[in-house]
Amino acid sequence: MSTPAYDALTATYTRMHRLGHLGSIAGWDQAANMPPKGNEARAAAMAELAALLHRMRTDPALADQIERAEQEPLSDAQRANLREIRRDWQRANVLPEALVQRREIVSSRCEHAWRSQRPAGDWAGFLENFRPLLEIVREEAERLSQQTGLARYDALMDRFEPGMRGATVDRVFGEVRQWLPGLIRQVRERQAAHAAAAPLAEPVGPFPVERQRALCQDLMGVLGFDFEAGRLDVSTHPFCGGVPEDVRMTTRFAEHEFLSSLMGTVHETGHGRYEQNLPRDWLGQPLAEARSMALHESQSLAFEMQLGGHPGFAALLAPRLRRQFGNQPAFEPDNLHRLITLVKPGLIRVDADEVTYPAHVILRYEIERPLAEGEIEAEDIPALWDAKMQELLGLDTRGNYKDGPLQDVHWPAGLIGYFPCYSLGAMYAAQWFAAIRRAVPDLDARIAAGDLAPVFDWLKANIWSQASRWTTDELALRASGETLNPAHFKAHLEARYLG
Amino acid sequence: MSTPAYDALTATYTRMHRLGHLGSIAGWDQAANMPPKGNEARAAAMAELAALLHRMRTDPALADQIERAEQEPLSDAQRANLREIRRDWQRANVLPEALVQRREIVSSRCEHAWRSQRPAGDWAGFLENFRPLLEIVREEAERLSQQTGLARYDALMDRFEPGMRGATVDRVFGEVRQWLPGLIRQVRERQAAHAAAAPLAEPVGPFPVERQRALCQDLMGVLGFDFEAGRLDVSTHPFCGGVPEDVRMTTRFAEHEFLSSLMGTVHETGHGRYEQNLPRDWLGQPLAEARSMALHESQSLAFEMQLGGHPGFAALLAPRLRRQFGNQPAFEPDNLHRLITLVKPGLIRVDADEVTYPAHVILRYEIERPLAEGEIEAEDIPALWDAKMQELLGLDTRGNYKDGPLQDVHWPAGLIGYFPCYSLGAMYAAQWFAAIRRAVPDLDARIAAGDLAPVFDWLKANIWSQASRWTTDELALRASGETLNPAHFKAHLEARYLG
Repeated sequence: MSTPAYDALTATYTRMHRLGHLGSIAGWDQAANMPPKGNEARAAAMAELAALLHRMRTDPALADQIERAEQEPLSDAQRANLREIRRDWQRANVLPEALVQRREIVSSRCEHAWRSQRPAGDWAGFLENFRPLLEIVREEAERLSQQTGLARYDALMDRFEPGMRGATVDRVFGEVRQWLPGLIRQVRERQAAHAAAAPLAEPVGPFPVERQRALCQDLMGVLGFDFEAGRLDVSTHPFCGGVPEDVRMTTRFAEHEFLSSLMGTVHETGHGRYEQNLPRDWLGQPLAEARSMALHESQSLAFEMQLGGHPGFAALLAPRLRRQFGNQPAFEPDNLHRLITLVKPGLIRVDADEVTYPAHVILRYEIERPLAEGEIEAEDIPALWDAKMQELLGLDTRGNYKDGPLQDVHWPAGLIGYFPCYSLGAMYAAQWFAAIRRAVPDLDARIAAGDLAPVFDWLKANIWSQASRWTTDELALRASGETLNPAHFKAHLEARYLG
Repeated sequence: MSTPAYDALTATYTRMHRLGHLGSIAGWDQAANMPPKGNEARAAAMAELAALLHRMRTDPALADQIERAEQEPLSDAQRANLREIRRDWQRANVLPEALVQRREIVSSRCEHAWRSQRPAGDWAGFLENFRPLLEIVREEAERLSQQTGLARYDALMDRFEPGMRGATVDRVFGEVRQWLPGLIRQVRERQAAHAAAAPLAEPVGPFPVERQRALCQDLMGVLGFDFEAGRLDVSTHPFCGGVPEDVRMTTRFAEHEFLSSLMGTVHETGHGRYEQNLPRDWLGQPLAEARSMALHESQSLAFEMQLGGHPGFAALLAPRLRRQFGNQPAFEPDNLHRLITLVKPGLIRVDADEVTYPAHVILRYEIERPLAEGEIEAEDIPALWDAKMQELLGLDTRGNYKDGPLQDVHWPAGLIGYFPCYSLGAMYAAQWFAAIRRAVPDLDARIAAGDLAPVFDWLKANIWSQASRWTTDELALRASGETLNPAHFKAHLEARYLG
C-alpha cells in the first residue's frame, strides 16, 4: 500500500537524525576533548547545525505531509511514529526562529557566566543574566501554552515529559512531602544506632585515576554496557551522549575518593544501556527515541539506586575494588553496602542519597513552577530556597548561593520543567523493580548471587526495546500493569532502609 | 562599494565551513575514538553531510552569483578568493550528488574493513571492497576529465595539487629515477664504512607509551604547536585533521621503539602548524585554506626531514630522551643524528628515510596512474608492486600484502592522485630551505644552537600566512624566487649524505 506522504516524512527525519549524529559527537567532543581556542569555531558550527535542523523541522511542506500521512494506510507502529513526528513538528513550529536564536544567545551567556559565578557565589551577577533568560522562557511558555492549550508550566514540562501535568506532579510530590521528613528521621535514627561504616577515604587511598578508570570499565561490563558500541571518557560534568549506535559516557575522577565517580558511572550506564538497546529497525525515526526524560532517569536510577543500593551490588564490587586498590577492611561487602546506602541530608542534589533526593527535587519544582508562571520573580528564589531546605531537610543555606540556588546547570541553561523528571524517574524505577519481583520471585537471591540478567532482560523487553512506541502511560501499563504509582517508591525505601 | 553577489557567496562559504567543521571533528573521531559498531551510523552521517555540502556547492544560484561577483569592485584578495570559489564550484558541479554519496559510503566501508584486513594481510578481502571503490574513482576521473579537459589522472590529481600535471610529474620523477638508485648505493656504501650507529632497541627499551606520549608532546611544543588550539591522539594511520582553530594530530606508539612514532609526530606537527597559522581574518573562505597538498607536505617534510635530519635536531632531542627514558649511550646527539639519517631501503613508506622515500612514491604513482586510467586492474597491483620494489629498492615483497600494497590508507580511502604530493612536497621543502639559507646565512649554526625561529618565521611569512592567496607557482616564485625546481632536493641530499 502506498504511503508517499509518510515516506517523505520518514526520509526527512532520517536525514535530520544523521545530521544530528554529527552534532552529538561534536557536543561530546566539546566536553571531553576540545582545547579552549576551539570553542568559538565549535559554537559557530553547532549554531549553524541547530539553525539548519530548525529550518528542516519548520519546512512548510511538513505540515501538509503530516496531514496527508494521517489519511494513509499506516500500520500501528507507523501511526505511533507519525504521532511522535507531529509532536516534534508542533514543538518546533510554535517558536519563531528569532526567539530560538535569542534564547540560544541569552542562555549561552547565562550558562557561561554561571560557570564562574557559581564558585564565586555571585547571585547578583547571576540575576543580571538570568532575568532576561527567564523572560524568554516565559515567552516560550506562553506560546507553547497557546498552541497546546496546556498551562504554561505544563507546556514547558511536556517537552521533557510528554503527557505529564503539574496537577499530577502536585499530587505525587504532595504525598511525598507528607511522609518524607518522617522517613528521613526514622532512617537516620536507625543508621545512627549501628556502628559507623569504615570510610573509603585516607588512609585507604589515594586511588590512582587509571585504576579507577579500569574499575569503572569493569563495572560497566558487568552492567552489560557494549564497549563495541560506546566509550567511557572524562568531562567536567558527567553525561551520557553520542548516538544509540555509539554511546559516549563521561565521568570525572578525583584521586582522594572513588565512590562518587563509580556510582556516577553506574548511573550513566543505565542511560547508556537504554540508548544502546533502542530498536534498531526504527533508528532515525522519532519512534526509536527514548520515551521521555523521566523514563530515561528511571533507567539510570534503576542502575544506580535500585541495583547499586542492593547488597548484591556491594558483593560484586568488593573483589573488584581489591583487584584495583589492594585488600582493605573498608572493602568488606557489608561495609560497602552501608556506605552506599548511607542517608544524610546535604546541600547538594547530585550528591544526595535516594532517600533525601526527592526533597531537592520537590524544592526546585515548587520554585520553578510559579517562576515560569510569573507568580514569583527571580529575586524571590533565595528566600524560598532557604525556607524549603529548612522545612524539608532541616538545613540552613542562608547566604550560601554556591551550594544553594546556583548549584545546578538547569536554570542557567534555561531548562525549566525538567527537575520533576528525576524523582518521577526514581518512582518509575521502583515500579519496574516491583514488577520484576513479581515476575521473578527469587530476584533478590539472584542479584545477591551476582546474576543481574533478570533485571536487564525485563528492562530490555519492557522499556528499552519499546522506545517511543507507546505513550508513557501506555508503556507503564503494559510493562507493570499500572500507570505511575508512587506507592512503589515509598515501599522500596521502607523495605531497604527500615526493613 | 557594494558587492552583493560576492557577499552572498562568502556567506554561503562560511556556512559550509561551519558545517564542514562538524564533519572534520567526526572524521577525526572516527579514526581516533569510534568503537566498531558505530561505523555504519557514522558513515551514513558523513554521507548525509557530504550530500548536504554538495547540494550547497551545486546550488544553481551560485553560478549566477559567481558571474555577477566577477563584475563587482573587488579587492585583489577578494578576487583571489573568488578565483578559489570558482575552482571549488567547478569541481563540485562535475559530480552528481548520488555519486558523491555512493563514494562516501563505499570508501568508508573499504577504509573501515582495511583497518583489520591490513594486519591480517587479507588482500582478497580488500579487493572485494576496493573494486567497487575503484569503479567510482574512475567514474569521477572521467567526469572531471570531461569538464576540465585534463587527462583523467591529471583531473584527479588537480583536486589535491591544483595546476600540477602528469607530464610534469613524469619529467620530475623520471629525472629522480635516473639518479636515485646510484645515490642510494653511494650513501649506503659511505654509511657502511663508518661505525654502525648504536641502536635504539632492546636492551635500551622498552619505551612506555606514556613516556613516548610525553616526549612527543614536548617536541611538539619545541616545534611551536599550540596545545590550546589542538591535541595529539592515537590512530592506526597517523594524520593531521580537525580544523585550523582546533588541530587534531594523531600518532601511534609501539613500546619496542620510539623513533618512528616520534618522527611521525614531527611530520604531522609541520601540517599542524600550517593549519594553526592560516590567516584568521579570512577563516571560512577558500582563500584561507592551505594552498595544496604538495605545499602541505612541504611543511611536514620541512619539519620531519629538513629539520629532523639536521644535527641541531639531534642535539635538541638528546636531553629530552634522557629525561623520559634515562641515560643511554645511544642517546648521544651524534648517534641519534646517525640513526635519524640512516639510509636503508625498507618495505614501509612512512618509515622510509628521505633518500629512499621517493622510490616509494614513484612506485605508487606508476601504479595508480594506469589504475585510474583503466589500463590496469586492482588484481594487477601485487605483481607490479613486487616488480617495482625489486627494481627501485632491491626488495622482495612477494606475498607480503600487509607491508606491500595494503600498507597505506590512501587507496582504501579512494584517494588516488595524492601520492605524488609527498615527493613534490619534499622538493618544495628543499627549495624553501635553500631560500631560508640565502636569507639567513648563519641558519645552520642557529639550528645547531637550538634556535628554530628563523625557520618558523620564514615559513609563517611566506607559506602559512599566504594560504591560497596565490597560485602555487606564484607562491613559490614570491617565496623563493622560482617555481618548483627539483635541483634543490638533489643538492640537499648530496650535501647531507655525501657532503
